[in-house]
Amino acid sequence: MPVRDEVTVFEAAYARRLPVMLKGPTGAGKTRFLRYMAWRLGRPLVTVACHDDLTASDLLGRYLITGGETVWIDGPLTHAVRIGAICYLDEIVEARKDTTVVIHPLTDDRRRLRLEKTGELLVAPPEFMLVISYNPGYQSLTKNLKPSTRQRFVAIDFDFPPPDLEVEIVAHESGVDRETARRLVQLGGLIRNLRDAGLDEPASTRLLVYAGLLIHSGIAPRRACELAIAAPISDDPAVREAVLDLVATVFPE
Amino acid sequence: MPVRDEVTVFEAAYARRLPVMLKGPTGAGKTRFLRYMAWRLGRPLVTVACHDDLTASDLLGRYLITGGETVWIDGPLTHAVRIGAICYLDEIVEARKDTTVVIHPLTDDRRRLRLEKTGELLVAPPEFMLVISYNPGYQSLTKNLKPSTRQRFVAIDFDFPPPDLEVEIVAHESGVDRETARRLVQLGGLIRNLRDAGLDEPASTRLLVYAGLLIHSGIAPRRACELAIAAPISDDPAVREAVLDLVATVFPE
Amino acid sequence: MPVRDEVTVFEAAYARRLPVMLKGPTGAGKTRFLRYMAWRLGRPLVTVACHDDLTASDLLGRYLITGGETVWIDGPLTHAVRIGAICYLDEIVEARKDTTVVIHPLTDDRRRLRLEKTGELLVAPPEFMLVISYNPGYQSLTKNLKPSTRQRFVAIDFDFPPPDLEVEIVAHESGVDRETARRLVQLGGLIRNLRDAGLDEPASTRLLVYAGLLIHSGIAPRRACELAIAAPISDDPAVREAVLDLVATVFPE
Amino acid sequence: MPVRDEVTVFEAAYARRLPVMLKGPTGAGKTRFLRYMAWRLGRPLVTVACHDDLTASDLLGRYLITGGETVWIDGPLTHAVRIGAICYLDEIVEARKDTTVVIHPLTDDRRRLRLEKTGELLVAPPEFMLVISYNPGYQSLTKNLKPSTRQRFVAIDFDFPPPDLEVEIVAHESGVDRETARRLVQLGGLIRNLRDAGLDEPASTRLLVYAGLLIHSGIAPRRACELAIAAPISDDPAVREAVLDLVATVFPE
Amino acid sequence: MPVRDEVTVFEAAYARRLPVMLKGPTGAGKTRFLRYMAWRLGRPLVTVACHDDLTASDLLGRYLITGGETVWIDGPLTHAVRIGAICYLDEIVEARKDTTVVIHPLTDDRRRLRLEKTGELLVAPPEFMLVISYNPGYQSLTKNLKPSTRQRFVAIDFDFPPPDLEVEIVAHESGVDRETARRLVQLGGLIRNLRDAGLDEPASTRLLVYAGLLIHSGIAPRRACELAIAAPISDDPAVREAVLDLVATVFPE
Amino acid sequence: MPVRDEVTVFEAAYARRLPVMLKGPTGAGKTRFLRYMAWRLGRPLVTVACHDDLTASDLLGRYLITGGETVWIDGPLTHAVRIGAICYLDEIVEARKDTTVVIHPLTDDRRRLRLEKTGELLVAPPEFMLVISYNPGYQSLTKNLKPSTRQRFVAIDFDFPPPDLEVEIVAHESGVDRETARRLVQLGGLIRNLRDAGLDEPASTRLLVYAGLLIHSGIAPRRACELAIAAPISDDPAVREAVLDLVATVFPE
Repeated sequence: MPVRDEVTVFEAAYARRLPVMLKGPTGAGKTRFLRYMAWRLGRPLVTVACHDDLTASDLLGRYLITGGETVWIDGPLTHAVRIGAICYLDEIVEARKDTTVVIHPLTDDRRRLRLEKTGELLVAPPEFMLVISYNPGYQSLTKNLKPSTRQRFVAIDFDFPPPDLEVEIVAHESGVDRETARRLVQLGGLIRNLRDAGLDEPASTRLLVYAGLLIHSGIAPRRACELAIAAPISDDPAVREAVLDLVATVFPE
Repeated sequence: MPVRDEVTVFEAAYARRLPVMLKGPTGAGKTRFLRYMAWRLGRPLVTVACHDDLTASDLLGRYLITGGETVWIDGPLTHAVRIGAICYLDEIVEARKDTTVVIHPLTDDRRRLRLEKTGELLVAPPEFMLVISYNPGYQSLTKNLKPSTRQRFVAIDFDFPPPDLEVEIVAHESGVDRETARRLVQLGGLIRNLRDAGLDEPASTRLLVYAGLLIHSGIAPRRACELAIAAPISDDPAVREAVLDLVATVFPE
Repeated sequence: MPVRDEVTVFEAAYARRLPVMLKGPTGAGKTRFLRYMAWRLGRPLVTVACHDDLTASDLLGRYLITGGETVWIDGPLTHAVRIGAICYLDEIVEARKDTTVVIHPLTDDRRRLRLEKTGELLVAPPEFMLVISYNPGYQSLTKNLKPSTRQRFVAIDFDFPPPDLEVEIVAHESGVDRETARRLVQLGGLIRNLRDAGLDEPASTRLLVYAGLLIHSGIAPRRACELAIAAPISDDPAVREAVLDLVATVFPE
Repeated sequence: MPVRDEVTVFEAAYARRLPVMLKGPTGAGKTRFLRYMAWRLGRPLVTVACHDDLTASDLLGRYLITGGETVWIDGPLTHAVRIGAICYLDEIVEARKDTTVVIHPLTDDRRRLRLEKTGELLVAPPEFMLVISYNPGYQSLTKNLKPSTRQRFVAIDFDFPPPDLEVEIVAHESGVDRETARRLVQLGGLIRNLRDAGLDEPASTRLLVYAGLLIHSGIAPRRACELAIAAPISDDPAVREAVLDLVATVFPE
Repeated sequence: MPVRDEVTVFEAAYARRLPVMLKGPTGAGKTRFLRYMAWRLGRPLVTVACHDDLTASDLLGRYLITGGETVWIDGPLTHAVRIGAICYLDEIVEARKDTTVVIHPLTDDRRRLRLEKTGELLVAPPEFMLVISYNPGYQSLTKNLKPSTRQRFVAIDFDFPPPDLEVEIVAHESGVDRETARRLVQLGGLIRNLRDAGLDEPASTRLLVYAGLLIHSGIAPRRACELAIAAPISDDPAVREAVLDLVATVFPE
Repeated sequence: MPVRDEVTVFEAAYARRLPVMLKGPTGAGKTRFLRYMAWRLGRPLVTVACHDDLTASDLLGRYLITGGETVWIDGPLTHAVRIGAICYLDEIVEARKDTTVVIHPLTDDRRRLRLEKTGELLVAPPEFMLVISYNPGYQSLTKNLKPSTRQRFVAIDFDFPPPDLEVEIVAHESGVDRETARRLVQLGGLIRNLRDAGLDEPASTRLLVYAGLLIHSGIAPRRACELAIAAPISDDPAVREAVLDLVATVFPE
């Protein structure tokens, strides 16, 4: 498998002012990648965690009454457009439909943002970039991106890092030695293969790092894996037992 | 097939003050056509992207408190009526029912807009025109235009541009050579024939342009088509593989 | 078939202060008839297009804050009662239940309107009349008039105008010659006979006028009928083809 | 059938301060009876038409801002308690649950009304009486009175007036002669026997009066019955034809 | 059956500061018992009738704007905590989930109430007691107390009073002689045995008292039982006839 | 079974700044444990009981108008971040989705909280810790933690205390002698074994303490167990009888 080209692709999209969608499971490194790219491109990053109750006003801004005066306060999207930042809408499908529609004019070739409430029409500077993330694993029938939204983005697929890189990440972020990190990554791989056995979502790299941190604090490896991996992954006793069996395989002592 | 008559029809409707509905799939050029017609007729264009939470007040206007005074601020529809603009309600079926009803008096022969909240009764000037867009492809049972709304519009059908024109568009907008543009358009045609195979919406011209932009930036054609066409179109692995097979057919190297 | 007696009946209801319900399909001339009767009786006409989000306050009025003071603003129903107008609630079943209840005291023999929020009790002057419209064609199970509301109105049925009258209307309003108008009316009749074939609503006179206007602007008759009649009526390809076949029958050249 | 005892029962309930529920179909005279009893007992009558959106605040009162001050405005129920009126909640099941609960403390032996928002505790004077109406005919599964509410009321059943009385009412209120009134009442009786044939609600006395008024204005009896009885009762063509057959039987000329 | 120990149990719970749940059908005397206990313990009683729309703010308090200042107004629960009253949440399952959660900190051993909006943390004085009522008879699947709420209360079961006591109550509160009261109580018992025959809720003592009051006012016993018992209990003709048969058995004259 | 290591694990998580999830049934001591850890670590504890209507603003803070000025008031989560407290979101799955999302940035390695409404970006001090509780026993299909939330926490499982410790707790908190406490704990164990027999939730230690308190107040043990354990646990007569049989086994006198 060749080295992945995410950095190249992202830079091409940035240069061409194309909006980008990061697709992949929780913990596959979408957010981490974007933080790196923002640093690499030298642009500020404005992140919005999308949810059911996020309104268009939360993104665009609203009037507040201060000192008897009504003052307009930019929302994070408007702010990002004004300063030419990278605006990141995390888990976009969680947002209400109107949020999705608000970004349409920013994603066609005019790259404009109309603030109906102030009457302003902002033209995004060349530095502005819109990025969304999307996890195809647990989309429901009622929550999905409309084709007219999806087809506005170049989509980069994300999966878990290759084992060698993941070992390095776990060792570096948790402080455990390479051998322990290698076993944790091996455990992660085994659990990810269980995916069809009733797990909603495979174990993320984050959980491996958590287990490493507990091991580094003196908790026994098996117990650390139970606390940081098995319990957070599932409430189903059968799934949990299967995971603990894998733990016992990897940490046999 | 003769040259299409959209421009003639639109100008006739404008001259006769008939409201117009643009029907067709995402990316078939409805918005682009309307921007051209607004420029051709020399009228400003006011666009409103409709969504679930769009209220009648968002269209008509509302009172805001500024400096201790309540001030009326026109919404985009009211604004368009006052200045004699073309008002474009994009994806009208996404809006709530009250939005749909608000436009009724503007679409009969009186062409009036009553602002209940200010008591004003605006008569639209001859230059004012109402245009809506509508995508019959993904209407659900719960979201549909009522007959009493539909039957107020002359309806112009849109489909993707004929191949020659689409090649020209892709080449011009992405910067790739004619041969690459021709292959991308060929790919688009092949994917559009998959429509019955589980695709919600065929690949739009926009996606072909995106792929061209990435190719022009040095991304290999196959990878560019994966990033800009296959991934944005579908999450279904089977559909995706089918699309990638088509990509491999068109770009065999 | 004898000349219809709508004018006589409406005048009797007006003289007896009975509320009236206009029943019939879209485009059968209910609104047009009411405008004529308002002019004939010399009373102003206040029209309210009902919709899902129409609240009782929208009909009755509300307090607004202006210049630091709370000021009561009459809604259209209250306004109509005060000035003795004809108040027309168009498509009443679209309104929320509370709208329907608000009109009850105006439709019994006391003809009173209580404004809870101001404490006022208005007695309608003899000139005041309440009229509602109702389209039995596309009522759903969830949207229906309760018997306790329905049984407060004298109901006048409306259907499309007889052919001769409709020819005159189409010719006069679109500017086409009598022969073309006759063919358009013939087409309307043929389409109305398709009603059981999957059409939600038959073609209204308005659509025939639109087609006439396009023909008068130089669009070929068949294309004009496609734009103004076939496309607005249905998205179903089978229905559409059937309609276009009828068009070809009526305009064989 | 003995003379009914509604007046005696109502007066006994009033004397004993028992709340009363009037049960029966639309147009059976519940409201008319209550207006009579209020006049007979010399008490003002405060009527509230209940609906889906009636809040507890609509009944109890609310604070309004006037002249920069927050002023409490009594709602109709509070007002009725203060002045010792008869308070009539018409079609109580249409109201939201909280309305129903608000009246509980007024219907037990303490007869108190607590205004949480002002901190007041009102004790109802002996003259205050609470009356609700209820139509068992079209209650749905979701809209019903809870037992803990129902069992707080003495329930008086209402049905249509006996034929002789109904003839007198129709003759007096519409101005037609006794023979015409007798035929209209006969028609009403025949239609009420159709009840199982798909009619939601039988023809009320009010509709008979409306038909009489139109006849008195010169409309032919059959047409008057069509306008005022057949059309308001049902949209179902079969039911309607059945009703028109009955009309033809009663008015054979 | 030994004399019931509700008073002893309630006093023990009060002394131990345990919250209490009163369980039982409508009209079994839960509210009456609590009023007695409040009088016996010399504590004020604050009652809140719970319903669908009761918010946490309704219980805790809210800010109001008076004279240009925002003033905090205690809700009934806060008020009861401050003055050391018995706070009674009647029919708690009718309330929204957030109401239920608001009382949690008052029911564990800290007995505290945090007012997020004022930043106050109230510690309940020893005299404060929380009591809820709950009718297991008509709980639906969607409305139920969560285990984490239920298990915070000592639960006292209530049923109808024993016949001798009920006779005394009916005689005393309605003014009828003992023989009539005995027959009414006998009727109540017979109807309660019908419970499985389609009655949502058995006849409460209150209905027997109502019937007694009407009899005492001169209404014939059978008619009084129809008005005050049969009609309020059910709309179902079969159930009603069954109840009237029982009435005829008890009052054979 | 070795001594449990909750304290060690929690201290390791605190030192490593890992967020913690406490999993287990009602009454297993999750809240009690957290209160102990907050005391042990010398950090203030801010508790939020989550419910259906808890908004992001309730957690983060909101603007209030006081003295004519708009003043920002921190919510409990913001407050906890500012002062470096332990913030405890009790029964997190009860909260709306937006609450869950609000905590995401506090649970990744940046540990930041953005207040969109004030524009502030708070970085949590090292002393700040986020803890949530979660009861896997009665989660429904619609209420569940998303994987992307769950996988941010180290999860510590809780169950009821071992018998010896539970005897000590019951004796100490209720004042009964050890023998009575032992029997109550025995009863608790027997009831917990009924779990599959239709009990939503097993009897918590709290209920055993309640029963002890009533016994200590002089209520007979069987009656105390009925009041404090059997009745609060279930409304189902069969389950209740089973529980009372167990009571009779444990307290045979």
